[in-house]
Amino acid sequence: MAAWGERLAGVRGVLLDISGVLYDGGEGGGAAIAGSVEAVARLKRSRLKVRFCTNESQKSRADLVGLLRRLGFDVSEGEVTAPAPAACLILKQRGLRPHLLVHDGVRSEFDQIDTSNPNCVVIADAGEGFSYQNMNKAFQVLMELENPVLFSLGKGRYYKETSGLMLDVGPYMKALEYACGIEAEVVGKPSPEFFKSALQEMGVEAHEAIMIGDDIVGDVGGAQRYGMRALQVRTGKFSSTMGPQEPPPPATSSLPRRWCLLSSLSCLPVPPPACPPGCLRRQPDLPCTSPASTPRCLRDQAEGRAGSAAAQLALP
Amino acid sequence: MAAWGERLAGVRGVLLDISGVLYDGGEGGGAAIAGSVEAVARLKRSRLKVRFCTNESQKSRADLVGLLRRLGFDVSEGEVTAPAPAACLILKQRGLRPHLLVHDGVRSEFDQIDTSNPNCVVIADAGEGFSYQNMNKAFQVLMELENPVLFSLGKGRYYKETSGLMLDVGPYMKALEYACGIEAEVVGKPSPEFFKSALQEMGVEAHEAIMIGDDIVGDVGGAQRYGMRALQVRTGKFSSTMGPQEPPPPATSSLPRRWCLLSSLSCLPVPPPACPPGCLRRQPDLPCTSPASTPRCLRDQAEGRAGSAAAQLALP
Repeated sequence: MAAWGERLAGVRGVLLDISGVLYDGGEGGGAAIAGSVEAVARLKRSRLKVRFCTNESQKSRADLVGLLRRLGFDVSEGEVTAPAPAACLILKQRGLRPHLLVHDGVRSEFDQIDTSNPNCVVIADAGEGFSYQNMNKAFQVLMELENPVLFSLGKGRYYKETSGLMLDVGPYMKALEYACGIEAEVVGKPSPEFFKSALQEMGVEAHEAIMIGDDIVGDVGGAQRYGMRALQVRTGKFSSTMGPQEPPPPATSSLPRRWCLLSSLSCLPVPPPACPPGCLRRQPDLPCTSPASTPRCLRDQAEGRAGSAAAQLALP
Repeated sequence: MAAWGERLAGVRGVLLDISGVLYDGGEGGGAAIAGSVEAVARLKRSRLKVRFCTNESQKSRADLVGLLRRLGFDVSEGEVTAPAPAACLILKQRGLRPHLLVHDGVRSEFDQIDTSNPNCVVIADAGEGFSYQNMNKAFQVLMELENPVLFSLGKGRYYKETSGLMLDVGPYMKALEYACGIEAEVVGKPSPEFFKSALQEMGVEAHEAIMIGDDIVGDVGGAQRYGMRALQVRTGKFSSTMGPQEPPPPATSSLPRRWCLLSSLSCLPVPPPACPPGCLRRQPDLPCTSPASTPRCLRDQAEGRAGSAAAQLALP
């Protein structure tokens, strides 16, 4: 396969989506995607900087990291960029008091936020919390505001659990936008501010970074618009929706025209660890150890949804 | 006030919206809007043809008419154009078997429809039925179809109950559209086919008809686009949303530029009954008997949301 040096020249940092790339959620917390634990370990041993950039908004960062660690991943809270803490920062900066329509699992992230007499609404992936009653309450709060402000933690259409596809927060954001005649502010991917924050925390410029995710809009499109490169994995929601049953792209999204597909994170070519100080030897790229990863796996998977027969890694 | 003959020249038929014009739903079935029972009675005594054109999709026509009759209205099932029977006709014509996400109250309208092995989804104002689980099921059915077809019985943003504003089916239609990357087929106002069907049942051409409703998109905009005139009443959802707290119009709707407002249906100027055969007397217009209806009530209320200081009855 094309060596890391050829295809990913200049990349110094990797942003990894979590759900659908590292694991699929579901009963009992979910299951790691084959080879992903080892792939993360290889990445962290390499000379690349690694950060986790997720739209997960059902769980607090602490709970998410706890789950990932139980699944075998080497990850700490400080390595995760997630929308709830980003939203809290915005709320504080703008003096806003939210009505929260969020999952109980993420509510602790808002412990320090004043939610009395709300002057905005924050929605996240509330799962079963998206009852008619809860949606109607959020709607009524917005309609009573002179300047209704709605924050949505991500705008994903759906995600994959082990039991099947599940509606994400995006459809409910659209519902409230339409009901109230407003436009939500998205906190999370594909918002440029969110990528900016993740890159700053990693200490890498956009043109030196690559985003790896399973969502064509949130991960690939968002990263490309922010000047990053992007890889879409064929795991997570991808595998349930592409091919014969591929839905048309959402009319509102501006999809990337060319990008690169990868069977799974385990196929990612990983550069060698940084040489120790003074070392003059040029280390060869580490081989991709996944059984699915032949020397041509990256190139062979390279076909964009936009119809390019020989799509390449999409450069910004 | 301007006489019927001046302002509504050539009108032979009146389409009346039901919720928000005749009554507000709510606990115990809801309550008639002041003066509306008498206004309907006057209209039916006049020389005009009258038909009820509703997007009500929580109740069967039989239940809706039963409720209206208990509230004092002179109405029969045969006088009501409603989306569920219209949807059944389309399903039969196209050989479609729906997965139904509808309120239990309207399910009986679909008794003759085959719902096995569904190849489309029908959503209506399901109220509490819009649980996450039910929405997710509808989403999964659509995602499993090669050519996903979604029917929405109306696309109203919200309606008013005696307890407050309530989310209508429209926001949930938008949610599924976004989740699946599809566009729903709307059965009900403002669909041209729906107005066409109501007018055919009344035996009146579009240019001879006026729609009276509380919804600027479904009633006024839809009727105008179909070549009818329209009046918006200041009852129902109107009274809760206009004025200082008026929300911006939904970005997707093409709003009428000029139309006429009316305090309530009770203010509608009503022409006299048809003269008996051979009568040569020209009967004067019947007076508007509502206390709120001064001789200038129609003119004084005439100010469109589009900012026209002297909006007139909007002609097609």
